[in-house]
Amino acid sequence: MKSCFRASRVVAVACCALLFFLTKVRPQSDPLPSWNDRAAKQSIVEFIDKVTKSGSPDFVPPADRIATFDNDGTLWCEKPLYVHVEAVLARYKEQITANPKLAEQEPYKAVAAKDLGYFMKLYEDKEINTVVSDLIGVPFEGMTTEQFADWNRQWLKTWKHPRFQVGYRGLIYQPMVELVKCLKANKFKVYIFTADEAAFLRLVSEELYGIPPENVLGSSIKLKFDNSTEPTKLIRTKEANYLNNWDGKPRLIEQVIGRRPIFAAGNSNGDLQMLQYVAKQDRRWLALLVHHTDEKREHKYDKHTEEVLPAAKKGNWTIIDMAEDWKQVSLQPISTTGPGKGGG
Amino acid sequence: MKSCFRASRVVAVACCALLFFLTKVRPQSDPLPSWNDRAAKQSIVEFIDKVTKSGSPDFVPPADRIATFDNDGTLWCEKPLYVHVEAVLARYKEQITANPKLAEQEPYKAVAAKDLGYFMKLYEDKEINTVVSDLIGVPFEGMTTEQFADWNRQWLKTWKHPRFQVGYRGLIYQPMVELVKCLKANKFKVYIFTADEAAFLRLVSEELYGIPPENVLGSSIKLKFDNSTEPTKLIRTKEANYLNNWDGKPRLIEQVIGRRPIFAAGNSNGDLQMLQYVAKQDRRWLALLVHHTDEKREHKYDKHTEEVLPAAKKGNWTIIDMAEDWKQVSLQPISTTGPGKGGG
Repeated sequence: MKSCFRASRVVAVACCALLFFLTKVRPQSDPLPSWNDRAAKQSIVEFIDKVTKSGSPDFVPPADRIATFDNDGTLWCEKPLYVHVEAVLARYKEQITANPKLAEQEPYKAVAAKDLGYFMKLYEDKEINTVVSDLIGVPFEGMTTEQFADWNRQWLKTWKHPRFQVGYRGLIYQPMVELVKCLKANKFKVYIFTADEAAFLRLVSEELYGIPPENVLGSSIKLKFDNSTEPTKLIRTKEANYLNNWDGKPRLIEQVIGRRPIFAAGNSNGDLQMLQYVAKQDRRWLALLVHHTDEKREHKYDKHTEEVLPAAKKGNWTIIDMAEDWKQVSLQPISTTGPGKGGG
Repeated sequence: MKSCFRASRVVAVACCALLFFLTKVRPQSDPLPSWNDRAAKQSIVEFIDKVTKSGSPDFVPPADRIATFDNDGTLWCEKPLYVHVEAVLARYKEQITANPKLAEQEPYKAVAAKDLGYFMKLYEDKEINTVVSDLIGVPFEGMTTEQFADWNRQWLKTWKHPRFQVGYRGLIYQPMVELVKCLKANKFKVYIFTADEAAFLRLVSEELYGIPPENVLGSSIKLKFDNSTEPTKLIRTKEANYLNNWDGKPRLIEQVIGRRPIFAAGNSNGDLQMLQYVAKQDRRWLALLVHHTDEKREHKYDKHTEEVLPAAKKGNWTIIDMAEDWKQVSLQPISTTGPGKGGG
């Protein structure tokens, strides 16, 4: 057990001075090498510079440097389906195979008929409780939180992206991973606020982005505490607890962090309110919107940006043009022809 | 802007070796000086030793060292009333003074009549939505989150404990502050899970315990996102969002952290399930119960421990006998006769 010990001040100061000297004499390396030197990169560099430079009028103390990222479409590829939705569908199919009678009723019926429009309609109609229940709750009802984690870990081992033929690790955006790392190096507390179920993304967040599970917040279902056994258990119900999308994002940020971020990044209408919560505050802020303009290396689309894209333009947020701003998209080159390295 | 820079390995290793050497030759200081050398202290020291010693069969990696503390009655004095409840009552009284007609209806009526039984009955009957609404929501309805913080900060400046005549800073338990510090020094991630509104306790958690706002989770009311102005606002409704008590604690731990703690500390039935969630798991764990046995220096009571105290005894949890285990209770000696230093 380490006691609450303080090293000799003299030695500590000497070490710090040495490290400081070394940082000064070494050439500064570019923390964002996958970004082209255009307006988006410049606005990021300038923002971090201003809020971290002691004595700057825009200086923000480390404790208040909160950054929140959306996940799907912002940190990794979300097309043709969210990875999380792929997992849910696989679980539905497994259940239908074991018990074909399930396909007589929704949402199994829609899955059996490959009718994804069923889920999309619930989402677009903002049928919040049903969409959370159907997309998160129903197929995992009755599992403990540990069983849920185990099932999804197993699934993640073998799943491959249908077009790029890589596993989930091949889908992350290298430029955004660099940005997360750079913010952390500049003493930002970096969080993910995703519409995915937090319990799903937490399984891979550390590995993918260096963001620990407790900094990943998302949608959730209601749990039941069962103390009839040892160890005690948390058991999943099928009922919606929270949809972390639209205004749900700033509300959950306040509930969990209790501080307004000075940085946020998103890519769709579901991120609009989180970005609005950050944009136009009294301190220096940065709101980033990833715009999917890269048909060749990733995807090109504007669906679900009908509200957020005009807001970004009007509010002078920083729009990332994926095709123009990023030297490379993925950590491992995404091939459109042959199979990749996989994510298992 | 600091680049994502790595110092020369040689120098880093040399500095580490020097620091390591210094920690070895200096005598180890006692990290828990306010604790008498009895079973409770020994179980804490042994637990931390086992889970942090590399190579120990009970070793737990730092990322999984999660510790959760209750606040009222565990980290500071909760009698005669929670400080948080005192603030709420003050706000009710302010509203009644401004508009006496409010006293015609509940919960203002109960406050005007000094009938705290009204609130206690709601709590004991587990009327969750009403108790959260009445104790957190109603008197602050319509305020922005910033206005709520400002009002409570002002109130905290002048409030004094009715018996001890100290401000809120005089109410914290020195032995528990040492424990929090010691856990953090041993790379635990330390959280507070309180039945108080998180937005209240976050105003003082860093100052009192060195625990930042984002590590304080508690009860909450529903917020409304308002993007009609710049900056955008989160506005308080009077509706309950969450009561962080009883089974609500392990459920919120899972929702926010996503990992089962290996350490928890509480003092009342409201903490039972959080302690059960930690006790008897496959890894080494420690469940602490603060037992209020010290009429002279603090308070002596068993109300609201009818369930948790037998569970602690049966489960071999560590029971802290405040009168016997603590050399001193408070950071500043609590006087029962004269006024203290105050908390402003």
